[in-house]
Amino acid sequence: MQVHIELKKVVDDSYDITIDKLPKIYFDTKVAVVTNPTVSALHLDYLLSNISAKELHVVTLKDGEEYKNQESIDAILDSLFEHRFNRKSMLIAFGGGVIGDMTGFAASIYQRGIDFIQIPTTLLSQVDASVGGKTGMNNKYGKNLVGAFHQPKAVYIDPSFLTTLPKREFAAGVAEIVKMAVTFNKEFFEFLESADLSDAKVLQDVIKQAVETKANVVAEDEKERGLRAALNYGHTFGHVIENETKYKEFLHGEAVAIGMVMANETAVKMNLMSEKEALRVKALLEKYDLPTHYEISDVNTFYETFFLDKKSSDSAITFILPLGIGDVVITDKVDRGTVMCVLNKFGKDK
Amino acid sequence: MQVHIELKKVVDDSYDITIDKLPKIYFDTKVAVVTNPTVSALHLDYLLSNISAKELHVVTLKDGEEYKNQESIDAILDSLFEHRFNRKSMLIAFGGGVIGDMTGFAASIYQRGIDFIQIPTTLLSQVDASVGGKTGMNNKYGKNLVGAFHQPKAVYIDPSFLTTLPKREFAAGVAEIVKMAVTFNKEFFEFLESADLSDAKVLQDVIKQAVETKANVVAEDEKERGLRAALNYGHTFGHVIENETKYKEFLHGEAVAIGMVMANETAVKMNLMSEKEALRVKALLEKYDLPTHYEISDVNTFYETFFLDKKSSDSAITFILPLGIGDVVITDKVDRGTVMCVLNKFGKDK
Repeated sequence: MQVHIELKKVVDDSYDITIDKLPKIYFDTKVAVVTNPTVSALHLDYLLSNISAKELHVVTLKDGEEYKNQESIDAILDSLFEHRFNRKSMLIAFGGGVIGDMTGFAASIYQRGIDFIQIPTTLLSQVDASVGGKTGMNNKYGKNLVGAFHQPKAVYIDPSFLTTLPKREFAAGVAEIVKMAVTFNKEFFEFLESADLSDAKVLQDVIKQAVETKANVVAEDEKERGLRAALNYGHTFGHVIENETKYKEFLHGEAVAIGMVMANETAVKMNLMSEKEALRVKALLEKYDLPTHYEISDVNTFYETFFLDKKSSDSAITFILPLGIGDVVITDKVDRGTVMCVLNKFGKDK
Repeated sequence: MQVHIELKKVVDDSYDITIDKLPKIYFDTKVAVVTNPTVSALHLDYLLSNISAKELHVVTLKDGEEYKNQESIDAILDSLFEHRFNRKSMLIAFGGGVIGDMTGFAASIYQRGIDFIQIPTTLLSQVDASVGGKTGMNNKYGKNLVGAFHQPKAVYIDPSFLTTLPKREFAAGVAEIVKMAVTFNKEFFEFLESADLSDAKVLQDVIKQAVETKANVVAEDEKERGLRAALNYGHTFGHVIENETKYKEFLHGEAVAIGMVMANETAVKMNLMSEKEALRVKALLEKYDLPTHYEISDVNTFYETFFLDKKSSDSAITFILPLGIGDVVITDKVDRGTVMCVLNKFGKDK
């Protein structure tokens, strides 16, 4: 005896990303702004002067990746419960990727899901975290291992927030932009080679192109079953570097920059990419003072650490390797010898 | 400058509910069975003899609604991380509604969502929790306040599990069946009036009809934006009763039984339902020894407690009132006087 539960339906999670000076935003619901002390000190007054809501609360979490945990999620949820938020209430993520991911995750599980919008204040979160709907938190087993896919209702990217962003963090954002260009958009890559990001109009345009590039990928593969995995270019190696340095030495984008260089070396070794193209990517990263070298103290340990990465299946590591600039292959068919050869180039004795 | 993120798509969360002796089930992935000591002692061997998997782990949570909390969710997640479950791994909820809700919630957030199947062992979870995709846990603010909508890949209802179910729990399941009949299915109600649930074939058929009735509602309104709220018939009052008795005196289904009687009294008072129909519902509940009376110690406190319920918006309480048997109205236009008049009938001095 069987009953078929028919739940095939059209879901529309579409939304708009506005890249401009923050507009006035009106809500006829309760709203909670989730932020951290750093962003709050610099920009909260500006934000609040643009928001009108039925009731407005601010939840301030500690600043830093090390607080991207259950305690911070609970702090958000507790505030919503204390202020009796209901299913129509709204969250606003106001900060970088950590704030965005946690706010989105809290929104996804509060009363089985409420709406949220993103107002990202770092270049990285503007170009990366604002598209894709990935939300989550870290735990003792690793980064982003608990979370949900939950799309924002809207994203407001105001590039003027970037004027207060430390130079290193700005560059870390550029690394992810370069990543999108190398993997999917050759014209964009060439544009970046000659672009002057200190020009506000150019910067706005670059953010737009990065967002569009990522949006095209996510639209085709929201839940990362195929194509979207290509955005992990640089991350297979980068995650190991972050892991080995306990997330203290490099910003995420910096580790990804080195990871891209390592991936390129692998691609060159496998004749997927020319040496000249690999050098162009490296030169673009160096233009923004991004690190492109990391001294591996033990290549075997480095290799083993690949298998801690959740994106790896039980027996094979997935590599994202450029096919020149603007195209990419996702493969778990890279033999250990090839990888070790690349790792040895970064080894201690070299 | 604006970028439109187009995420309109067809999602197919359809699945089958098998109501029969548990078949042999084969998985080519890692599987974790989540259960509790009570169910485990009675039925785990039987379950395991029917399951074949690449790797099989059992997570045993403490038994009871009071353990439907973050600690239990963490216990599930920890086990998955320890055994390196990946995105293709599978959870099996093996127990009642508490196990089902928590397993589904853990599945929804582990690595941003993995699959799970339900093998419910109580009548309540077989007819209620197995359809609808509601998952979650309790916290200090109330029941099911944190969670997600996450549909199972399949549900296997084996009525033979019910032979070991305590009589009170069986009756509590019948209460939810009566609820579905009164709200949506008059023929089913009439069938129940003359049905003998001790007959295995009849029981199987009743489970099927209950599941179908709920499935029709959920298919139309998965996220409870309208129609589905009608399944909260009996719950507006029932939740307050559970709250007042600290979830100790009544099983959920028992509180809902009393809640339905209270809702019916309200409907009779408002001329939506005849007194005779209200008596038929009461008689059917009493046929299964379900409680139909609760002595309210303070009617004003009882009324105020409605507003703690998350399903209530800020200013109005939503009531689900039968329009006779087999139809229902969802309304927040019941004046305080009418409700107080009904509550007084259950008041201490009566």
